[in-house]
Amino acid sequence: MNNSMRNPSDRGQFAFDGLDRALHEKARLGILSSLTANPQGLLFTELKALCSLTDGNLSRHMQVLQDAGLVEVWKGSQGKRTQTLVRMTEEGRVRFMDYIGVLEQIVSEASQASQQVEKSMRADLGWSPT
Amino acid sequence: MNNSMRNPSDRGQFAFDGLDRALHEKARLGILSSLTANPQGLLFTELKALCSLTDGNLSRHMQVLQDAGLVEVWKGSQGKRTQTLVRMTEEGRVRFMDYIGVLEQIVSEASQASQQVEKSMRADLGWSPT
Repeated sequence: MNNSMRNPSDRGQFAFDGLDRALHEKARLGILSSLTANPQGLLFTELKALCSLTDGNLSRHMQVLQDAGLVEVWKGSQGKRTQTLVRMTEEGRVRFMDYIGVLEQIVSEASQASQQVEKSMRADLGWSPT
Repeated sequence: MNNSMRNPSDRGQFAFDGLDRALHEKARLGILSSLTANPQGLLFTELKALCSLTDGNLSRHMQVLQDAGLVEVWKGSQGKRTQTLVRMTEEGRVRFMDYIGVLEQIVSEASQASQQVEKSMRADLGWSPT
């Protein structure tokens, strides 16, 4: 059993305060990724298909993202049909890339830790690099 | 307004089915990252501090992770105190690294898309690389 107490400076090391729940939720992460890849904006119907969401689900998540100032919604008409266009705000773009930076850190630390485990497992087996 | 319809093959492109909710939730992502960095296991009290969680919150998330087969819990005593040791299961390690692979993809696509936007913004301004 590992009984070594952690260093007090490690407190909160894995609290991931940078993972804003407005952005981290799976469907909203999909919406924001779609809009980052399509800076000109996407129609509501396109977003629905790209993110595999129902009308109700997309509306609910859009409300959270609008309230957080991350996306903006435009109404327009094409012929007889009213269309809804969704775009990322400039604040949304900045905050999403900050969030992506936190993910990048998590990925990098997990990959390093995992490689170390595999290295020590190989060492246990008496294997060494050729 | 952007009216170009997406290619039907783009359907679900941003649904992120690989983002298993058992792993993607912020606190559980912290717990799994902590355990990946500490393959020998962590005491419940250590995990609490590392992830900045209360007793109740950590217990609740541990239950989800145990039910999903991602972590295992051991009871032991040190002198008069009963201690709880938490370790990642082998299945947990594999599934967490699969999840990390999905995050890596999201990070890479967002970074590329963002760079393209910046490039086209510089082009709009009439700037060009020196």
